Amino acid sequence: MRAVMISEPGGPDVLKIGEIPQPIPQADQVLVRVDAAGLNRADLLQRKGGYPAPAGIRADIPGLEFAGIVADVGSAVDQWKVDDRVFGIVGGAGQAEYVVTAADQIAAIPSNLDPIAAAAVPEVFMTAYDALQQGGLAADKRVLVHAVGSGVGTAALQLAKAAGAMVYGTARTAAKLKQATELGLEQGFVQDGDSWVSELMAATGGQGVDLVLDFVGAPLLQANLDVLASRGRIIVIGTMGGARGELNLGLLMRKRACIIGTMLRIRPPAEKARLTGDFARDVVPLLASGEVKPIIDRVFLFDQIAGAHRYMESNANFGKIVLAVGVPVSH
Amino acid sequence: MRAVMISEPGGPDVLKIGEIPQPIPQADQVLVRVDAAGLNRADLLQRKGGYPAPAGIRADIPGLEFAGIVADVGSAVDQWKVDDRVFGIVGGAGQAEYVVTAADQIAAIPSNLDPIAAAAVPEVFMTAYDALQQGGLAADKRVLVHAVGSGVGTAALQLAKAAGAMVYGTARTAAKLKQATELGLEQGFVQDGDSWVSELMAATGGQGVDLVLDFVGAPLLQANLDVLASRGRIIVIGTMGGARGELNLGLLMRKRACIIGTMLRIRPPAEKARLTGDFARDVVPLLASGEVKPIIDRVFLFDQIAGAHRYMESNANFGKIVLAVGVPVSH
Repeated sequence: MRAVMISEPGGPDVLKIGEIPQPIPQADQVLVRVDAAGLNRADLLQRKGGYPAPAGIRADIPGLEFAGIVADVGSAVDQWKVDDRVFGIVGGAGQAEYVVTAADQIAAIPSNLDPIAAAAVPEVFMTAYDALQQGGLAADKRVLVHAVGSGVGTAALQLAKAAGAMVYGTARTAAKLKQATELGLEQGFVQDGDSWVSELMAATGGQGVDLVLDFVGAPLLQANLDVLASRGRIIVIGTMGGARGELNLGLLMRKRACIIGTMLRIRPPAEKARLTGDFARDVVPLLASGEVKPIIDRVFLFDQIAGAHRYMESNANFGKIVLAVGVPVSH
Repeated sequence: MRAVMISEPGGPDVLKIGEIPQPIPQADQVLVRVDAAGLNRADLLQRKGGYPAPAGIRADIPGLEFAGIVADVGSAVDQWKVDDRVFGIVGGAGQAEYVVTAADQIAAIPSNLDPIAAAAVPEVFMTAYDALQQGGLAADKRVLVHAVGSGVGTAALQLAKAAGAMVYGTARTAAKLKQATELGLEQGFVQDGDSWVSELMAATGGQGVDLVLDFVGAPLLQANLDVLASRGRIIVIGTMGGARGELNLGLLMRKRACIIGTMLRIRPPAEKARLTGDFARDVVPLLASGEVKPIIDRVFLFDQIAGAHRYMESNANFGKIVLAVGVPVSH
């Protein structure tokens, strides 16, 4: 079968389409014929030689999510059958014509989502859902989503809005904020210096926000604490702007605040299975009803993978970048 | 009535015993004749002009906890009667012959505790109990208590031990660690440079700890994260060594860790009442059975308050320093 392969650490041109043996499912696994696979920032890191794959996962094939058709099931699998439409996250090797994965780490694709749309869902909606849960999302909460035009950002915005929360966001450009407003953003702020801090405080009547979802890391650590309401929580799901920042522990105490670091990929299988089950229960119905939807910026053909990486590195996207693996590009 | 008064911000000598009117309980309050009152580090800060009293509390009388006898009750109070033995925390003004406090922010003193012992309980046991709860204390957890010879440290050690956890601790001297070992400390480490980090990791078989209780703040931030197990929590209840430290957000993510700041004094009354109720339900029975006990280092007479402050500033104490207000010194 064909798979995206990292020939050596480096720029987008180290990515090749290679031929490798089709994987064989173990007793508790399913084999999925991949129709489409989402691209993630972690793929860029992995290509450069950072963000290594977990134990037991091939390090030279990127890909953290897929949508496809069950092609075979292991002997102990009774909840899935051949031809079921499924999607899920994997520890790696998702950008290939076939993946094997644990039977309890996939969910059924709702019938209203085509394969490209489905491939844009798992990583960002599971990440956003899980982060919002850890942040104590509730109907009466104020939520701040940084990089609100990103894949996880658009998913978090919609999920928080669906839960009845009031959602604020930052982005690099006013154009992204305008698009986010159409998804229900209460108010957006261009992240250009620190002026968004006072603007957000004014927008919330001096209250600040109860929950911050952050991908940027160190450069925003102090500002995130500044805009946090008493007992608020900062969920750190990325450190794109840097990992080491100064933390004011005195302010953390006075706000009785909490900073939580989180990551999906390194979780043990039982936790991934639990999250997949929660996602199927809480998020898939919202996707099926159309209350939340995957936001797709652009679709690349499988063998355009280097171009897809370059495009993601340009930060121009609003929403997800998806690779069409086994389906024609229709978006 | 007589009360400790801060005549002006400064050293221990600004503390005077003054005469002020006896307070009068409102409908939902009780008047308590104070037998003894605990000393806390916050009193030192307040004396120097930092750590201001919350709104509605006299700023010039220190004292965050007391043990005594109900002397009068407000018209709406039915759960307490005159002569009940009670203890509790207050936002301030506790180092006086009488205090008024909300009827739902006191608990009954178990009969095995004399007034001096009872006065050593509320602040440290409520702080430690609350911090351990926020840290997810459970029987299978490994807990690290910094300053394990302090008042909160000895309380946390005993409460964690009573819950079935394995407790490690640091202190400034080997003598304090030896005393802590008699209270159930699994292993102690003199905090002198960073060698305790590798010693603790070795002691836990490379696992690290699930919960860190920290009073020191910035100087220990990186080390606390280094010794934390996956999904561990750091509870920051003090910043004695400094408030601003560098946080490695990448490590926070990879450990899926959580840093929680907490403070009792600034909580709204309903939260203080809830904590008092939880303390009465979960901690007072352990005190009554003798499974946990207040550790008293030294008792000072009411008018020796300046000496008590000097003694606390010397960091020589193991356990609490208590002021005898209305009872003779018997410890």
